Amino acid sequence: MHRVRVAVAEGVLDANETIARANREDFDRAGVTVINLMSAPGAGKTALLERAIEAGLGEARIGVLEGDVQGSLDADRIAHLHVPVVQLNTDPGFGGECHLDANMVRSAIPEIPLDEIDLLAIENVGNLVCPAEFRVGEDARAMVCSVAEGEDKPLKYPLMFRSCDLICVNKIDLLPHIEFDLELLLANIETVNPEATVLTTSARSGEGVEAWVQWLAALAAA
Amino acid sequence: MHRVRVAVAEGVLDANETIARANREDFDRAGVTVINLMSAPGAGKTALLERAIEAGLGEARIGVLEGDVQGSLDADRIAHLHVPVVQLNTDPGFGGECHLDANMVRSAIPEIPLDEIDLLAIENVGNLVCPAEFRVGEDARAMVCSVAEGEDKPLKYPLMFRSCDLICVNKIDLLPHIEFDLELLLANIETVNPEATVLTTSARSGEGVEAWVQWLAALAAA
Repeated sequence: MHRVRVAVAEGVLDANETIARANREDFDRAGVTVINLMSAPGAGKTALLERAIEAGLGEARIGVLEGDVQGSLDADRIAHLHVPVVQLNTDPGFGGECHLDANMVRSAIPEIPLDEIDLLAIENVGNLVCPAEFRVGEDARAMVCSVAEGEDKPLKYPLMFRSCDLICVNKIDLLPHIEFDLELLLANIETVNPEATVLTTSARSGEGVEAWVQWLAALAAA
Repeated sequence: MHRVRVAVAEGVLDANETIARANREDFDRAGVTVINLMSAPGAGKTALLERAIEAGLGEARIGVLEGDVQGSLDADRIAHLHVPVVQLNTDPGFGGECHLDANMVRSAIPEIPLDEIDLLAIENVGNLVCPAEFRVGEDARAMVCSVAEGEDKPLKYPLMFRSCDLICVNKIDLLPHIEFDLELLLANIETVNPEATVLTTSARSGEGVEAWVQWLAALAAA
């Protein structure tokens, strides 16, 4: 008798991985590259996305999936820039979750015009813990870390910093006005994730935005 | 036959409520008032606690329970001020949770010298979502909201803002250096929680710290 042994997938994170792979297959079939964009609340994810959309990503067409507990404030901002945007709320229907998971993203896929875009930016719920634990089918992960949050965040939230390919140290226009040791933050990032690409940016002054846009354009073209 | 109908408590939040009540009974027996202090990462919870400890709370003796995913950076800061401090990590043993729950706090109670303090400040994990969903046995809730996070946070994280007795709008020393409409933030807070006491503070410049310390002292004396 031929026997096949199948290991039973266990727990919520295994189920999430299964669904994330299904999402990834859908994105791959449509030829869409996906970035999972994460940060603490108010670090500047939406503002950096706005700057990238305004600058354009070469030939790549971008769409945005906005994840929020409630409301559509960020989706409204992005919609003003005339790119496809879908709002995903984690409160009604999902119970006020602090992160996006693969199944929530899966529920939004039918609403996203995958044939009309090359890059899908998924803006996660503002949170430095759980979003890092749930793959949603992305090709790459980026996070935004505001200098106003202090130098210690990589050490306090290491999984988030470790799981990202790109880390944007944002709001550097504030550096003259705060007690902040940029070298210490960069050293703390190096400690938890020496492989990450690290950019210093200011969505407000525009400093470093060109490098962020180039990174996104290269990801979309890859 | 005498019948008693007992409604079965359901789910993780009901279990949390049961344990939170047990914590509260322990705190009440010891005569300790408990405040649950919450915020996004890097908003200034620890800095405001440091200022309050330095200023003193009248006759009230304070102790601190520090909640973090990993590490003891904040507990080390508080320990320098010579008050009792206990570190609670949500990663080893609790699986990297993004919030404190009543059972985690319960596991720390034997380490806290309740007989030597009048006020216990529980500094929650930096997160604007899940900490608001889990009572831990506190008498009051306070949150810190940094002006660097933008004016929209009460609308995006309404449960957190709604569940707090006190909201400290912190880092107001940055107001001259950012594009920020303080009146809009205050109006957004009023929309989601008209009952809250709202203070504007800067742990760095000291502005508003006296009002924060008086609020804490009054809570401890109540």
